Amino acid sequence: MGKKIVIIGGVAAGPKSACRVKRLLPDAEVTIIDQDSLISYGGCGIPYYVSGDVSDEKELRNTSFHMTRDEAFFLKAKGVTARTNTRALDIDRKAKVVHIEDVHTGAKESIPYDNLVLATGTKPNMLPIPGADLDGVFTISDLHKAIAIKERIARGEVSQAVVIGGGAIGIEMAEAFSDLWGIKTTILEFMPQIMPRIVDWEFARMLETHLTESGVDVFTSEAASAIEGENGKVRRVVTPKRTLEADLVVMAVGVRARSELAQAAGLLVSPMGNIVVNERLQTSDPSIYAAGDCIEVKNMVSGKNSIAPMGSLANREGRIVGDNIAGIPTKYKGWIGSFTMKAFERCIAATGLSLESALAEGFDAAAVTTAQSDRAHFFPTEAIIPLRLVFDKRTRKALGVQGFGPMGDAVLARIDAAAAIIGQGGTIDDLSQLEMAYAPPFATALDALNATANAADNLAAGRLRYVSIRDFLAWMEDFASHPDWVALDLRHPNETGHFVERYGKEKWLSVPYIEIRDRYQELPKDKTMLIICDAGTRSSEIQIVLDYLGLSNNLVLGGGFNIIRRMGVAWWPN
Amino acid sequence: MGKKIVIIGGVAAGPKSACRVKRLLPDAEVTIIDQDSLISYGGCGIPYYVSGDVSDEKELRNTSFHMTRDEAFFLKAKGVTARTNTRALDIDRKAKVVHIEDVHTGAKESIPYDNLVLATGTKPNMLPIPGADLDGVFTISDLHKAIAIKERIARGEVSQAVVIGGGAIGIEMAEAFSDLWGIKTTILEFMPQIMPRIVDWEFARMLETHLTESGVDVFTSEAASAIEGENGKVRRVVTPKRTLEADLVVMAVGVRARSELAQAAGLLVSPMGNIVVNERLQTSDPSIYAAGDCIEVKNMVSGKNSIAPMGSLANREGRIVGDNIAGIPTKYKGWIGSFTMKAFERCIAATGLSLESALAEGFDAAAVTTAQSDRAHFFPTEAIIPLRLVFDKRTRKALGVQGFGPMGDAVLARIDAAAAIIGQGGTIDDLSQLEMAYAPPFATALDALNATANAADNLAAGRLRYVSIRDFLAWMEDFASHPDWVALDLRHPNETGHFVERYGKEKWLSVPYIEIRDRYQELPKDKTMLIICDAGTRSSEIQIVLDYLGLSNNLVLGGGFNIIRRMGVAWWPN
Repeated sequence: MGKKIVIIGGVAAGPKSACRVKRLLPDAEVTIIDQDSLISYGGCGIPYYVSGDVSDEKELRNTSFHMTRDEAFFLKAKGVTARTNTRALDIDRKAKVVHIEDVHTGAKESIPYDNLVLATGTKPNMLPIPGADLDGVFTISDLHKAIAIKERIARGEVSQAVVIGGGAIGIEMAEAFSDLWGIKTTILEFMPQIMPRIVDWEFARMLETHLTESGVDVFTSEAASAIEGENGKVRRVVTPKRTLEADLVVMAVGVRARSELAQAAGLLVSPMGNIVVNERLQTSDPSIYAAGDCIEVKNMVSGKNSIAPMGSLANREGRIVGDNIAGIPTKYKGWIGSFTMKAFERCIAATGLSLESALAEGFDAAAVTTAQSDRAHFFPTEAIIPLRLVFDKRTRKALGVQGFGPMGDAVLARIDAAAAIIGQGGTIDDLSQLEMAYAPPFATALDALNATANAADNLAAGRLRYVSIRDFLAWMEDFASHPDWVALDLRHPNETGHFVERYGKEKWLSVPYIEIRDRYQELPKDKTMLIICDAGTRSSEIQIVLDYLGLSNNLVLGGGFNIIRRMGVAWWPN
Repeated sequence: MGKKIVIIGGVAAGPKSACRVKRLLPDAEVTIIDQDSLISYGGCGIPYYVSGDVSDEKELRNTSFHMTRDEAFFLKAKGVTARTNTRALDIDRKAKVVHIEDVHTGAKESIPYDNLVLATGTKPNMLPIPGADLDGVFTISDLHKAIAIKERIARGEVSQAVVIGGGAIGIEMAEAFSDLWGIKTTILEFMPQIMPRIVDWEFARMLETHLTESGVDVFTSEAASAIEGENGKVRRVVTPKRTLEADLVVMAVGVRARSELAQAAGLLVSPMGNIVVNERLQTSDPSIYAAGDCIEVKNMVSGKNSIAPMGSLANREGRIVGDNIAGIPTKYKGWIGSFTMKAFERCIAATGLSLESALAEGFDAAAVTTAQSDRAHFFPTEAIIPLRLVFDKRTRKALGVQGFGPMGDAVLARIDAAAAIIGQGGTIDDLSQLEMAYAPPFATALDALNATANAADNLAAGRLRYVSIRDFLAWMEDFASHPDWVALDLRHPNETGHFVERYGKEKWLSVPYIEIRDRYQELPKDKTMLIICDAGTRSSEIQIVLDYLGLSNNLVLGGGFNIIRRMGVAWWPN
């Protein structure tokens, strides 16, 4: 027999490294150990199982050719032994042995290894609040939890749910509850926005507005202070501002690495508890590898190490571990943070850093926001896809791109293309010249992503000056915040009439885009004009014209009303 | 006044450079000259105008905010003078003057320039065959032709059409005729495949099959030898094999640069007639720039110069010319050949070189073809997207990617991401590690593009041996071509039964994927086994297993029956 390879953890990175190494070293003896009875499932599919899109949990464990990845499958198809219901107790690095225990019988055993792989994943955080242990409070940590939740729903026991945590899992679960099952669902997020750090506030707000329109209540800057129950069962969630009735509570407030085994074995673990690996994904013991959610990897944009708990990365890392064990030297350069998410009828996606994150990391960062068409404006399915490009002003390096649009793959196309540039350390010029495929049914001649890079180029060169969306919204709420500001609305009079009527001709100047060159003498010199259009494009052009005409007392509303309208504002005309 | 800038050509690159330079140099005097009455239209939208998706030709000349880009628009909105119906007669480079003529009155005039931009585009090739001048034979060279075609159709004068040329424009026009108007349409392509050089034969065949299923007849390796008419009007197209009735003929057999003005002015023009420019898009006279379809630019993958007549490139080039005239040094590195096309219910797209082109360019190239899911197999809209990656075996450089799939943006996402890697000179490893955004509604944990790169990695490392699709199809037509070959079909017996019955147990071995490790001793050692499954993935795995078991007498059918079925074969069971 060949090498003995033992893998602890059977969800994503574990099975991937097992199968890869077995393909590369067909005579290796490969064993996966997992304390669970269910392994190799698509955890990211849990919301679609709970929603009912996926009728049977087995589909999450199936291959694309409809076979279930159970112990027999791994043995027969892959030549890999999967020992489920088996807990790894500790690692004897000197003897190169893992001590294991049968979860049901308690029978103990030792398995020798030449190489060990730790793919122990994460465990969900629990808020230390009263009632967190009540029946009906769930985390989304494994398939059993998902099955239990769906059973309760299917039995009609859930009519109101509270999701604590407005990250991706929380939002996907809220959609699952609300969309098909009609459960009244509320999301609580203690940060001032949903998806904090992942996308900037403007994009979070567009998503939040869509969630609200879709029937999910969202409360930001609001933490759950207690969960209350009756007879041991959850009944409500209490916040400093309100009490929410709930038959079911999902706590989705982040995860942390499962690294107890690694720590006990004396392997290097970061202060945050993440398993430390080198570029070949070896731990501090070169015969032990680690992969997946439990390891700390370098973010290639920020240069910082952190866990990156994503199924897509777990699969890549598993393959790299397989390569290296088999003697193919393969490096994992790091991650950049590409993600996408469906929320009802919308897609939100991003890659790299948000502006807030980039600034927090010390970059001299700036961002442009655009709101252009995803395809030719005359093509029937055309839609606006807001994009945001974050870049470093000094190096012109692209740091991140965010996108929001209708459900479909239009946003994905731009984010994946941007991910390729950002992953290669590219600049806004690389994004500008990126040759995206064009035909009217799929794109515009100058793609929205290229156009966003061009806007960044103009901003970086000082050819563009923005008013921030935050400042603009504050001013709309209270003109006294900037008494010297006026709106210069370039849209068609049909669209501007409502605003002129409501705010007066002094505060809301309506001059159509095409008339500016003829009518610029009507414009004030003693006020700051906020130039407004639908997408921001015309506004940017007119800024240059006005500057040239000596009227540089102006700022552009980037992305225009296309962004503002999607963010949801009380003053928008119905 | 500032610089005088004259631009000859008003469709895409011309107006783009005009507007860009005017924004950068607001005091410049910018004049566009065009002999046509209609300018600044989206030529790529012509098929959608002819089909009726776009009701009015004005929509092709409109901005996204519904203004028509005519002379008044350019003047008022952009500050640019557009002189339509005005022909440039010649360029006096010494005096820096363009001599022009009013198309209608014949009045002549001279316009001085500091910088001149040639954006003269292309003219369509005409086959030198009898009858090419008959009434009813069209090229798609401008909007007037499109209007004339649509008028004939709308008047009910067209019931049968022949499109000569199976490139993108020909196919899009065939769809326009056939889909909405119900015109019986035939495509003639003199090369052995449609879209020659753009995609490889397998992908062309998948598209051809879909065209045929959608009601368009396609004849490849068949040239029109004559067009015949009655009373001066087209009536039929004759080929060596058949006579096709036709009320309308579209000749879409390529284009060549319009460079007569440049040539007459003594500017450097390539032997093919393309205007030669440097990286800043200056011609051999540094005060004269050129952009768009008329120039020769470097293909960054092949390193060769050629014209690249695409609207997306014209826009990029126009912006670069504007930058350089305004004193912002900007380089155009070259093009790579990204394209996408809708054909009825399918999307076909590619970037970089096809295998055939790469081999012709002297690369030591190979290709892998996969047929994987575009999103989680349990997500309702999941579909197979065949992908093909062409790479250099020595350098591992990615040379090109092709994709085919259902109409939508799934293929686009992979091609745009691949374009970013290929444009940066990346390798199959860069494609493998490209961090694409993942969530079940949009992708698989290991995206189809990553998986294709992994297959290329396996092929490059000698861990994968293919039978070519061409050889496999020849064998299926005539087993005598390789009497020593047998099929090893890994699919479920429900799927293989038909084949075993038809071809016999000797020629068609049905051993399910999961049973191979138990039943390998049944397999022949004296025949070459062609391993078959749906996507090629299981086959690749089993090849490794069999090799290890001493049965290396096998080859994998890459992409599996997912590809074969889409290519259309007579023997496919109904």
